[in-house]
Amino acid sequence: MIETRLIPRTSSAYSPPLLVSTLLKQTDRYNPHREIVYRNLFRMNYHEFNKRVRRLANLFTKLDIRPGDMVGVMDWDSHRYLECFFGIPSYGAILHTINVRLSPAQILYTINHAEDKVIFLHEDFIPIIEAIRDKITTVKTFVILSDKVYTEPKEDLAVASFPTAGEYEALIAQESDQYEFPEFDENTWATTFYTTGTTGDPKGVYFSHRQLFLHTMGLVSYFCGYRALPFTEQDVYMPITPLFHVHAWGFPFVATLLNNKQVYPGRYEPEMLLKLLLQEKVTLSHCVPTILNMLVSSPVATKVDLSNWKVIIGGSALTSGLAEAASALGITVTAGYGMSETAPIMSVAHLSETEQTLPLDEQLQYRIKAGRVAPFVDLRVMDDEGYFLPHDGLSVGEIVGRGPWMTQGYFKDPENSEKLWKHGWLHTGDVGHIDDKYYLTISDRAKDVIKTGGEWICSLDIENLISQVEGVGEVAVVGVPHVRWGERPYALVVAKASHVNNLTAEAISENLRQQVQEGGINKWYVPDHIVLVNEIPKTSVGKIDKKKIRNDLKGQIQG
Amino acid sequence: MIETRLIPRTSSAYSPPLLVSTLLKQTDRYNPHREIVYRNLFRMNYHEFNKRVRRLANLFTKLDIRPGDMVGVMDWDSHRYLECFFGIPSYGAILHTINVRLSPAQILYTINHAEDKVIFLHEDFIPIIEAIRDKITTVKTFVILSDKVYTEPKEDLAVASFPTAGEYEALIAQESDQYEFPEFDENTWATTFYTTGTTGDPKGVYFSHRQLFLHTMGLVSYFCGYRALPFTEQDVYMPITPLFHVHAWGFPFVATLLNNKQVYPGRYEPEMLLKLLLQEKVTLSHCVPTILNMLVSSPVATKVDLSNWKVIIGGSALTSGLAEAASALGITVTAGYGMSETAPIMSVAHLSETEQTLPLDEQLQYRIKAGRVAPFVDLRVMDDEGYFLPHDGLSVGEIVGRGPWMTQGYFKDPENSEKLWKHGWLHTGDVGHIDDKYYLTISDRAKDVIKTGGEWICSLDIENLISQVEGVGEVAVVGVPHVRWGERPYALVVAKASHVNNLTAEAISENLRQQVQEGGINKWYVPDHIVLVNEIPKTSVGKIDKKKIRNDLKGQIQG
Repeated sequence: MIETRLIPRTSSAYSPPLLVSTLLKQTDRYNPHREIVYRNLFRMNYHEFNKRVRRLANLFTKLDIRPGDMVGVMDWDSHRYLECFFGIPSYGAILHTINVRLSPAQILYTINHAEDKVIFLHEDFIPIIEAIRDKITTVKTFVILSDKVYTEPKEDLAVASFPTAGEYEALIAQESDQYEFPEFDENTWATTFYTTGTTGDPKGVYFSHRQLFLHTMGLVSYFCGYRALPFTEQDVYMPITPLFHVHAWGFPFVATLLNNKQVYPGRYEPEMLLKLLLQEKVTLSHCVPTILNMLVSSPVATKVDLSNWKVIIGGSALTSGLAEAASALGITVTAGYGMSETAPIMSVAHLSETEQTLPLDEQLQYRIKAGRVAPFVDLRVMDDEGYFLPHDGLSVGEIVGRGPWMTQGYFKDPENSEKLWKHGWLHTGDVGHIDDKYYLTISDRAKDVIKTGGEWICSLDIENLISQVEGVGEVAVVGVPHVRWGERPYALVVAKASHVNNLTAEAISENLRQQVQEGGINKWYVPDHIVLVNEIPKTSVGKIDKKKIRNDLKGQIQG
Repeated sequence: MIETRLIPRTSSAYSPPLLVSTLLKQTDRYNPHREIVYRNLFRMNYHEFNKRVRRLANLFTKLDIRPGDMVGVMDWDSHRYLECFFGIPSYGAILHTINVRLSPAQILYTINHAEDKVIFLHEDFIPIIEAIRDKITTVKTFVILSDKVYTEPKEDLAVASFPTAGEYEALIAQESDQYEFPEFDENTWATTFYTTGTTGDPKGVYFSHRQLFLHTMGLVSYFCGYRALPFTEQDVYMPITPLFHVHAWGFPFVATLLNNKQVYPGRYEPEMLLKLLLQEKVTLSHCVPTILNMLVSSPVATKVDLSNWKVIIGGSALTSGLAEAASALGITVTAGYGMSETAPIMSVAHLSETEQTLPLDEQLQYRIKAGRVAPFVDLRVMDDEGYFLPHDGLSVGEIVGRGPWMTQGYFKDPENSEKLWKHGWLHTGDVGHIDDKYYLTISDRAKDVIKTGGEWICSLDIENLISQVEGVGEVAVVGVPHVRWGERPYALVVAKASHVNNLTAEAISENLRQQVQEGGINKWYVPDHIVLVNEIPKTSVGKIDKKKIRNDLKGQIQG
């Protein structure tokens, strides 16, 4: 940074910080009559949404939540979650979007690590909390989110075996809808969540108000300004990437700011998703390939008109097969690239003017790419020594980035934080190249990570577990392609010499299933294939050569 | 501001500042083949534009311009001006957009007050500089901008009687097109210009990089996100509000960011404007009503197709008569509201969904309004004691504002800076009301200001001058409507008792014209009407009642 001359400041002059509440304040200006819908259970307009968020803020005060406190949410995608998206940060507290698909042990880890003070808990997850309640160290109370309050006649609410503050609707109904959100430093911590991407324990990423504001502006610029996506304020938006997954890729902030009609589908059930899609005339969604595949494969899909539906695909690569299947149903698909650490948008398959003039089927080859680098994001190709490689579409290296919305580290993990930001650039762990038109191609996946059904699992974790089974000498786990889940773990195991004759794949599998039952790992951690081999391929420096393993397995496996 | 918990920072982590160079860096990404055109003289694409801006930065180094230095520009609207818009701030210096329509004495004042070090000077303004050269205190050198370098065969360049560094094209041709713009504090001073809005001496407003970045994002959100204007990246943009006028309302930053094709018309000549409009297929412009009136009244206008042209009108109120005349030619007009102090956008006549469904002629009543408050701008109605009045569409008070892009004061003028920001809100000096749908109505104009041909002149200045004429006792100047110029000054004069029989309007007029010739004031300061009266209306507290004067004159005067 060079020294420059700053603007003079008049003592009475006011310069507002960039806050989540700044976004919120715009949301009842232009189209406050537009609706926010929750399944077939609840609907409101933006005026009411604003009032409810202010009621929620008054509830925070009553629950003794203070600025800087961590507030967890365990919910399916709902209007209440959206209220927490805006209400918790705007209040000055920190929204912890708890990943409800982690194992109970990992959920416990994230709650304690984040030091959640209050948790907004959907009744479906009461059993999880009951199982770990005794080990939760910081949570003072829970607010129950129940769908039963929206049904007529009213059903009985689920009862938890632990004390709670009460049910959400009943609690906010008691509060005033008047609340003036405070102003504070825009570098205030707004959100946090945990990623299981690369090593054993989940790692907490975090974003400031300024970062969320600028991510929203970045998406508005890219989608509406450059028209990288055909996203307008008249779209009807329904997320099909959970809100706990990197802020549902930031779309709820954009859609709320622009007063889009929004549809929140709760727990993802194919029938409900399709029903909402049609009834509410949804035009814009985003999801991982697995979910798109599930919807496209549904028998209902061919019987209905999906030609107004645009879907942004991320999380893992969009195959041309799936893109064609979706396209055949009239769905417009576009790929994007991002990660938990980057809030997440880094690129979108933004077609050039020439490419846009092609017939839709010919556009697909461009639409399934990782896309072109998003505005304000600076992506580079870096070699192992930290030098930049040219953007010639040929030079392959690690993709590293900078931008106004990248996590500044991992919470309470200085070592991995420094690794993430080595040489001052955020390391994606992905390998690829960039061309002179800002097209990004990811040529190889982050080495040790397997993505299954939209969830990241770490092959190192599974290796650690298998390595602890009696008789196991060496183990290597890689991801192999799977039609339904995207990828599934595949394990190669070398028995200890002493156990060559009595170690079986079944014994290893049984051991892992036992750990699933005990809540240590989730069931999708158990490899579909565990194969005993004599030797595991190694690189020239003696490291396990996963690239070779994956290559050897190519064509051999079909899930 | 309340105390909150800031995001943890990892020492290697990088968080980029919001700079003008951040905008510049996006401009060769997506549509670098689009063109920037200057009259019928010069055209380039965005790749070349980027290279030229970097050449310019290398020239700055050679001219010994340093970060924090003030660099003036005196030019008509050109591609070179656009290069200065991006190059000067990106380099860390400050762009002073000198208002070339001020009188030579005022131009001198602004150059010395801003402490310009170098001036980029169009050859047309060499005579002005020659007239004031001896009194300029800080300028080390001039770079000459000549249109003659673009003609074939080459004409001789204009020669100045004072030393210059040379001609722009020749100078940048010698420089490398490689230059890495530095990063620095986003609160660095980026631009400055002088407003003659409210008191005698021009007052300098100033904007930081952060403010310009956020103003650009605000416009992208409002225009492309909310579709308050039908502005897309495919529009062909041509400013008809000078670049020295509040950054041409910020549109060049938006258009450049989005890679719009841009057309710069140089000096505004109706024939050239219409020619460019048609030849380059311009779809989007902005101007003051006077200019629109001039174009609409041109005999050529009825013979050509203007139905793809959208015009944003600001600077003064758009009359329904003019809006109808423009509309009859197929032009889509939309009004906006802003001022020098606010970068400038505060509101745009953003039609609601219902209003948009009306036939175009019925939409006009909404399109000519000051519009709806722009996103991220907070406008309020304040009474004389500093209390807010309700947004009920009835309560009238001064319009005050806050937002991310408002000048934080007047340069070297702490007293007026504090007045501007009294109670922590920027005082527009305009009187109006706001309704619950964020519609703003300006019901009365800033008291003592007259807008003529897009220029602000201060009635107090004219009063001061007239009051100095021998025999003048009392004087009041108000603005009266004028078909061509929007408004013209009208003077009421009471002779001193000793001069009742020999003071004439002609003598006063002659005195003022003399001062025009001497360069003290500009010719449009001379009132069209100077009327000798026995008495000037006063308010109950004895102040001159300008409102009554204006009312009395209503209907009586037609320019």
